[in-house]
Amino acid sequence: MNLIRQAYVHRLAASSPEDVSALTDAVNRGQIDAAAIVAILGKTEGNGCVNDFTRGLATHMLKQAVASLSGRSLAEVTANVAFVMSGGTEGGLSPHWLVFESRLLDTAKTPVPVNSVAAKPSLAIGVAMTVGFLPEDIGRDKQIQATAMAVRQAMQHAGIASFEDVHYVQVKCPLLTRQRIEEAAGRGQGVVTEDTYLSMGYSRGASALGVALALGEIAPDAVSDASVCRDASLYSGRASTSAGIELMQNQVMVLGNSLAWRSPFVIGHSVMRDALDVDAVEEALAAVQLQPGRALRSRGLGQIAAVLAKAESSRSGLIRERRHIMLDDSDIHSSRHARALVGGVLAGIFGDTQLFVSGGAEHQGPDGGGPVAVIAHLAG
Amino acid sequence: MNLIRQAYVHRLAASSPEDVSALTDAVNRGQIDAAAIVAILGKTEGNGCVNDFTRGLATHMLKQAVASLSGRSLAEVTANVAFVMSGGTEGGLSPHWLVFESRLLDTAKTPVPVNSVAAKPSLAIGVAMTVGFLPEDIGRDKQIQATAMAVRQAMQHAGIASFEDVHYVQVKCPLLTRQRIEEAAGRGQGVVTEDTYLSMGYSRGASALGVALALGEIAPDAVSDASVCRDASLYSGRASTSAGIELMQNQVMVLGNSLAWRSPFVIGHSVMRDALDVDAVEEALAAVQLQPGRALRSRGLGQIAAVLAKAESSRSGLIRERRHIMLDDSDIHSSRHARALVGGVLAGIFGDTQLFVSGGAEHQGPDGGGPVAVIAHLAG
Amino acid sequence: MNLIRQAYVHRLAASSPEDVSALTDAVNRGQIDAAAIVAILGKTEGNGCVNDFTRGLATHMLKQAVASLSGRSLAEVTANVAFVMSGGTEGGLSPHWLVFESRLLDTAKTPVPVNSVAAKPSLAIGVAMTVGFLPEDIGRDKQIQATAMAVRQAMQHAGIASFEDVHYVQVKCPLLTRQRIEEAAGRGQGVVTEDTYLSMGYSRGASALGVALALGEIAPDAVSDASVCRDASLYSGRASTSAGIELMQNQVMVLGNSLAWRSPFVIGHSVMRDALDVDAVEEALAAVQLQPGRALRSRGLGQIAAVLAKAESSRSGLIRERRHIMLDDSDIHSSRHARALVGGVLAGIFGDTQLFVSGGAEHQGPDGGGPVAVIAHLAG
Amino acid sequence: MNLIRQAYVHRLAASSPEDVSALTDAVNRGQIDAAAIVAILGKTEGNGCVNDFTRGLATHMLKQAVASLSGRSLAEVTANVAFVMSGGTEGGLSPHWLVFESRLLDTAKTPVPVNSVAAKPSLAIGVAMTVGFLPEDIGRDKQIQATAMAVRQAMQHAGIASFEDVHYVQVKCPLLTRQRIEEAAGRGQGVVTEDTYLSMGYSRGASALGVALALGEIAPDAVSDASVCRDASLYSGRASTSAGIELMQNQVMVLGNSLAWRSPFVIGHSVMRDALDVDAVEEALAAVQLQPGRALRSRGLGQIAAVLAKAESSRSGLIRERRHIMLDDSDIHSSRHARALVGGVLAGIFGDTQLFVSGGAEHQGPDGGGPVAVIAHLAG
Repeated sequence: MNLIRQAYVHRLAASSPEDVSALTDAVNRGQIDAAAIVAILGKTEGNGCVNDFTRGLATHMLKQAVASLSGRSLAEVTANVAFVMSGGTEGGLSPHWLVFESRLLDTAKTPVPVNSVAAKPSLAIGVAMTVGFLPEDIGRDKQIQATAMAVRQAMQHAGIASFEDVHYVQVKCPLLTRQRIEEAAGRGQGVVTEDTYLSMGYSRGASALGVALALGEIAPDAVSDASVCRDASLYSGRASTSAGIELMQNQVMVLGNSLAWRSPFVIGHSVMRDALDVDAVEEALAAVQLQPGRALRSRGLGQIAAVLAKAESSRSGLIRERRHIMLDDSDIHSSRHARALVGGVLAGIFGDTQLFVSGGAEHQGPDGGGPVAVIAHLAG
Repeated sequence: MNLIRQAYVHRLAASSPEDVSALTDAVNRGQIDAAAIVAILGKTEGNGCVNDFTRGLATHMLKQAVASLSGRSLAEVTANVAFVMSGGTEGGLSPHWLVFESRLLDTAKTPVPVNSVAAKPSLAIGVAMTVGFLPEDIGRDKQIQATAMAVRQAMQHAGIASFEDVHYVQVKCPLLTRQRIEEAAGRGQGVVTEDTYLSMGYSRGASALGVALALGEIAPDAVSDASVCRDASLYSGRASTSAGIELMQNQVMVLGNSLAWRSPFVIGHSVMRDALDVDAVEEALAAVQLQPGRALRSRGLGQIAAVLAKAESSRSGLIRERRHIMLDDSDIHSSRHARALVGGVLAGIFGDTQLFVSGGAEHQGPDGGGPVAVIAHLAG
Repeated sequence: MNLIRQAYVHRLAASSPEDVSALTDAVNRGQIDAAAIVAILGKTEGNGCVNDFTRGLATHMLKQAVASLSGRSLAEVTANVAFVMSGGTEGGLSPHWLVFESRLLDTAKTPVPVNSVAAKPSLAIGVAMTVGFLPEDIGRDKQIQATAMAVRQAMQHAGIASFEDVHYVQVKCPLLTRQRIEEAAGRGQGVVTEDTYLSMGYSRGASALGVALALGEIAPDAVSDASVCRDASLYSGRASTSAGIELMQNQVMVLGNSLAWRSPFVIGHSVMRDALDVDAVEEALAAVQLQPGRALRSRGLGQIAAVLAKAESSRSGLIRERRHIMLDDSDIHSSRHARALVGGVLAGIFGDTQLFVSGGAEHQGPDGGGPVAVIAHLAG
Repeated sequence: MNLIRQAYVHRLAASSPEDVSALTDAVNRGQIDAAAIVAILGKTEGNGCVNDFTRGLATHMLKQAVASLSGRSLAEVTANVAFVMSGGTEGGLSPHWLVFESRLLDTAKTPVPVNSVAAKPSLAIGVAMTVGFLPEDIGRDKQIQATAMAVRQAMQHAGIASFEDVHYVQVKCPLLTRQRIEEAAGRGQGVVTEDTYLSMGYSRGASALGVALALGEIAPDAVSDASVCRDASLYSGRASTSAGIELMQNQVMVLGNSLAWRSPFVIGHSVMRDALDVDAVEEALAAVQLQPGRALRSRGLGQIAAVLAKAESSRSGLIRERRHIMLDDSDIHSSRHARALVGGVLAGIFGDTQLFVSGGAEHQGPDGGGPVAVIAHLAG
């Protein structure tokens, strides 16, 4: 028996946050092995802010579907599959799921996969968990260090040798609740903030700094408790972090390229310096051997499995010296404007709106900018 | 005395709907001749829907500023200058004013302007008014025919010989109010709709059909009362129409190129078939001798005086087969999503957010698409 | 064995649309018999408009909870329990569930209930279903007539003898989808509207007219296809109708008072003529032997099991000659303003915000007004 | 010559933020003496948050109207009349203006006014200005102390002898802008916050504490820089403060009752302990000799010149132990929910929606509550 690993990415349309029919169909058609699913990322059509219940609804439906399709219990699925929902499909963004599989292929039994002859590095997925946190750890150095360690474990798990081969790190991290704050207080411990909403930003920020630390994007002695959500010059160009109520540890998924895998996909990334940084997107395309222009956009996402980007309004109130009104709009949250803008910029380039553009970009790219990653089918 | 005409376009930043300081400064520095202003278009930061009072506030402030700077009465300014405010700067769009001047230059006294040696067609502006309408005319054939006639008069006024040389037609048109409907009813006449909000769409639609008729974009026998806001296959690729309460006739401004002018600008346009139609934008750029790409976007709107585009959500609920959620969002109006999307697509191309993207595109381009025009500085 | 019926109503707080813990607790404490539940009404915190997914999420969680707590399958629960979610807790309205039980009590085994000595009419619940509808029936006379018949069946089922004893009729009705419209078109049948959103209003309106017909509130020959959503003078003062995608028939729940029941509750109602009609609320209170004033509001809903009201903005744009801005606000839907207003009026009277105020009041009360019902504990 | 003072209050409907026709009409009919106007308070239909331009538009139009109607310059009007616009007419609140006049009556020439025989205390208006502030003074003790002094001056100016006779204090106060912050920094001075939006809250809060200090509602040694926007137990039950960009000092208007005036109005107030505190409203009514109930609400605001109240969501997330969702709603700002709720509670009591309910209640009443004042016609 000669086992090799293969990573698969499937982009599936959703007609609502409840719609898991495309997943069911793909499993039933044999295109997806439900038991091999390690993560599902979703763009849902809520406001992406506090009272966005599309995320919970989608997680609920997807979890049940994966359990049912793979014959596992809900508890097993919860323990083994990461569900990361990003609310907000402003502008023209189209709700969809990104399903990540990690398959084991017995080459003794199965025909040689597409990229095995002249083996090239291909998409690799590694997952890891931090230890459980105490409430007072969240948004602080302890979370930074633990995340950095988990990123390195996930790299090892994925067989990714070099930091340069890591192109996207998804982290799901905890947040503070009233109960958690009180539990800490009961032990005489103070937390980073007593505002539960703000705690999400601190947790995302500390997690992103952990990724930056792990990947050598910032120096070990550059970060401390005081850096989190304060020093905007410190950031990761590959982190995407998301806070959820359902866990008390960080769940890390590293995506990169590795010779240890025989996946039909490859990943590249770059960092948008501002919301209009098309040059950066072209660099990410070049990294996966694609050219921007009329031919690319006329095909839509034909050869592209996923585009993942972070969007955030610049705190200066300016984009290339022009005033934006995102931060002054009390009817539409600034993160909604930011997703719409970056979604439009990318949609023009790709000729497609099934783009995973998410907000909440603390320490994930420079102010007003953010990472952009492209996962493309490997040329035959 | 040897008089020639020159059209000027100035793009001025606005720090709020009340901010006319850039206009005042430009006049005081001698860059704008207040007496030569024929129109001011404005992008203001309201919601662009019913209760958008930024448009009224901006009109108010601009009118007072023009009156004060040109030494004319408010009534004179109102009669001679078109003020067209478009609310909505979603995504990253930046509030700004576009000031159009029509100057008369005595070449006996003044040095030869930039494009006079090898005279090329340059930006020409023509204005005209229809007759006054009765309430029952609005949104019907009478408004269509009258608009068509005014467009032809404005072309003549501008010295634009051929339909192909017309690239943008701005129309300001009336709407129905409760009083106007009742006045008509008192004479036994019914109006196109008793819903005052819907009357804005009918008026914009009939006006756009009038433009299409004048420019030969649709056949004379193709339109009737029944076409307005019903037959989406009929449209103008050059009309931009806007309804306002303050007038009962249509005010038409035609922008095109003409050998009769010696303006330092040239205009081109194309029609976006959908919100992602970058090819169309590149055609509009080519029409004014500009190339898309890294060099263009790195300069922002350096050589470009104005970008004018229409945005509207596709009624199919789809963009290139992908679902959009614009029509199902009860928190953010679909026109706001549409402007954010088209604004993002264009901002990526131009590297700038000072773009005049407006909504309400009945019969102004195909469903989900719309005209895009570029006014560029003439190369020296 | 001597069986009598008892209706119970439980008002339970919800900390989110997912929170069914109060239901679980009440069942576990023996306060609710999960097998006796016939309906759950919920106020959830979405926008109550098109993209309100809190309703779906709540229905999902409640259905699973009832199934799990009663040991039935999801299919059994779906067939036997009505779940009616009303989105929108604007102003100070507080999300909550109203759980309706219909119990059978064996008086041979159980002590005599509270109101049995001098038997008074007490709360009675009757349920019935119409036949299944074809898409072309929705919003038309067929739906009106079928609903009327179902209301009469539900009255009979509840043992309510007289129309005057009916105080609240909840109807859940179908809506049109793209597929349903096309299925009808395939058979050469046209539907009431091709706009799926508008179809909800037609279905709610026809259902309310059916209730009005059944209860003698309108004359049999007064309604036809042409009345629905057009003739605002026709309405029921006791109907509350709600459209959902998950059924193709009307599900009717009638609440009234009957001597055939020994429930510890009684219901009364009145019709608010406009949003400020406190007199009507005081009439509804009087009907259940309660006095408005300082004592009532200082207790909150202590003696009151449920307050159910309909809210809608007046189409005149006026409330008692004062202009309201609900219909002109493009940032907040008029139905959200209306719920906030009626919620505030009622909260002042009751000293409590756990009020079931719902929108979408086609033919449910006069323009700008609506029914209000109070379910109170029977005095001992 | 025997001069006595008379205060008048006129409540005028506004059909839009631009509509000053009711003011013009009232002046033209002789009901208002334009030269006697000392303040205009307005409820306008914007969002009441950052990007509410209805306030600026209304101020602009009102100022021009007062100048034109009184034959004064804009500068004179600006210096002598306070314009305080409160955005947000959520729920059913109706946009309107409250025009305050301070007339001098020569009793030698004019018939004896209504309440002069058995002289009762009647409505008195006093105005005063603080010194100009430096940016670093805003939101700090200096602003508190200066406001307290101005309140006492305004009392003296109004001839109000006792603190108990003061029932409403309107303060207009400055805010920080980028330029003001930088000017202070240039002198080596730090400001209370570098967030210009937050500076509005600090300025309102310090101003309200100044009122509380002046009226003996808090002890002199109870306040300091550290109290502002932190210690919610310190508040005034009579302050209503509003921040604006156009001034750098505090403008104070005190309303109370005084024997020195012969006004046809009287004012009373109370403090709502939470948003549902109808008892407090009844106390305010009793203070002006009015009874709540069916008779009062059937007349609307017939005998009442103005109702002024503050609304704010409770920071606890609860109203009388029930959860509210105001603070978790990312689509509608909490202050909008709060105004809708309090507006509804009051509208039920008064049978009218022309109520001046404003938000932003830092140190103006207890958490979740606020002052409510009623100005009524004096009984003949």
